[in-house]
Amino acid sequence: MQKLTLPETAAWLLANDRYRIVTHRRPDGDAVGSACALCLGLRALGKTAAIWDNPQFTPRHAPFLEGLISREPLDGDTVVSVDLAAETLLPLNADALAGRTALAIDHHGSNTHFAERELVLPQAAACGEILYPLLTAMGVSLTRRMAEAIYVAVSTDTGCFQYANTTAQTLQTAADMAKLGADLFVINQQFFGTKTFGRLQLEARLTQTMVFCADGLVGLCQIPAAWVAELGLTEDDLDSISGFARTVEGVEIGILIREVEQGAGKLSLRTSPRFDASALCAQLGGGGHAGAAGATVAEGPEAARQAILQVLHQAGIVPEQEGFHARRHSDR
Amino acid sequence: MQKLTLPETAAWLLANDRYRIVTHRRPDGDAVGSACALCLGLRALGKTAAIWDNPQFTPRHAPFLEGLISREPLDGDTVVSVDLAAETLLPLNADALAGRTALAIDHHGSNTHFAERELVLPQAAACGEILYPLLTAMGVSLTRRMAEAIYVAVSTDTGCFQYANTTAQTLQTAADMAKLGADLFVINQQFFGTKTFGRLQLEARLTQTMVFCADGLVGLCQIPAAWVAELGLTEDDLDSISGFARTVEGVEIGILIREVEQGAGKLSLRTSPRFDASALCAQLGGGGHAGAAGATVAEGPEAARQAILQVLHQAGIVPEQEGFHARRHSDR
Repeated sequence: MQKLTLPETAAWLLANDRYRIVTHRRPDGDAVGSACALCLGLRALGKTAAIWDNPQFTPRHAPFLEGLISREPLDGDTVVSVDLAAETLLPLNADALAGRTALAIDHHGSNTHFAERELVLPQAAACGEILYPLLTAMGVSLTRRMAEAIYVAVSTDTGCFQYANTTAQTLQTAADMAKLGADLFVINQQFFGTKTFGRLQLEARLTQTMVFCADGLVGLCQIPAAWVAELGLTEDDLDSISGFARTVEGVEIGILIREVEQGAGKLSLRTSPRFDASALCAQLGGGGHAGAAGATVAEGPEAARQAILQVLHQAGIVPEQEGFHARRHSDR
Repeated sequence: MQKLTLPETAAWLLANDRYRIVTHRRPDGDAVGSACALCLGLRALGKTAAIWDNPQFTPRHAPFLEGLISREPLDGDTVVSVDLAAETLLPLNADALAGRTALAIDHHGSNTHFAERELVLPQAAACGEILYPLLTAMGVSLTRRMAEAIYVAVSTDTGCFQYANTTAQTLQTAADMAKLGADLFVINQQFFGTKTFGRLQLEARLTQTMVFCADGLVGLCQIPAAWVAELGLTEDDLDSISGFARTVEGVEIGILIREVEQGAGKLSLRTSPRFDASALCAQLGGGGHAGAAGATVAEGPEAARQAILQVLHQAGIVPEQEGFHARRHSDR
């Protein structure tokens, strides 16, 4: 694996052609926005480029992806990944891509160096924050459509600039995209401004069933698979619900356990700067960023709950004898 | 009343002294942030300046206001208002200020021109967005504390850059404040990142009791005064709840009716760009911005509900025979 600088990456992209851009399963705004911006930028330079048809793209992603997806076999295409931290996170239909990534553009500190060459900048709040100077270095004149793709990437990966990963550079990127004509409000409405009634009902249930430990420092929410059907929730509805427990005043370690495929328990951690979510999840075979990380416990949600409690016991964050309980604060 | 340009306002502020800065009742982040930035900027230039002791400042505002508030009588002080659209919105203890405003700095298009001179820029998303170039024009070298005050102003008045009033200039202001060292995350956590359990329970109740009309185009929430006590809600908890109905997918006119002092019904409207909240509220003697406006109906919440329904009937937005109902969509 060869580490490239940003100018080296730009030069390499200019020197090659026939790109197939791939991003991760359960694609989020950063994945989709980064893929679209790169694809459009390469095409603007006369390159052949298309995005791998991830089966988990949602209707919300469709307007950004229009005309950019290819369902053709890979053949000799040059595979570039964006926002992909590990090959285990490749799309569900992407067996053909294993071992095939020529270049990885990513911002995950936990990137597993699976690609032939990589540009991994963990200080970037979003992969889209890397795409902006990269396209500029390639000589691309950014269009409004590219600007909107980059805005989606940086805004969604920072919770619309609310999370701890937001820097001056993130806001500068957003300001520049607005100057390029990106329609911020339409995008904000779509990704942040509105919730379905189902999502609001989910939040009401989570409020009622949330449990705590360590005097309210740790909060845990659980979403049984049945709720998803009962409330008619889509993947979009569930997007960013991982941070829900963390929104309660005083909670510095917010945990969500969701029952996913084959009954596994998908743990998501969101932490304040005092705690390292990635390090805690690493003990369960997961990973991510310092403030946001995850792990999957195959034995199911209850096992996931016990497993993360044990990790918190071992880290000295939760007293040995304490479990989760409905009261936020112990009686003192 | 004399209209000043931004350079003229800077020159006037430099030519005078002994400033008392006042902002509106139920002060929000823009009011507090703008007042603090102006006060700190004037002091940095050697001027005497203090902020009028608004009795509705909240604990969340305290760190920003520290050392800036004066409880002295006005005497010959030069009164400057920030973010104040009308004298009727002066703080509850501000009878002495009536007819006394020498300069109004504001971004409300509905400003009633109550001051001797004014700098009113409705294109600014927040009053704090005006303070930044104004302080710069005055030759103030912005400190981190000033930057944080301005960041609070622009971030809170735009719902952390989500609302339709956010422009490239708003994001540029935020980016520049970050470059000046503003601790974005601490502020975001305080103003957006966390909610009290009471606030979350309020949202759950609003979800359960929300009513609609015009096929889900209009949504209405109502907060009885009793809830405030039952859930132990503070003014901070209620901050920005006005937009709650508007967060439901499809709702373009979100209404909140809150029972306030003396049993009056305080109406808040939040609208999509297709509807003018200010024009709708003007028919009930209120005002505000195109996307966010309010009015108070002295006869109480039920009268407020009937009054706004009539306004919506007259505007042709809701069919004549239709009232509010729990179903979002009519059966067709």
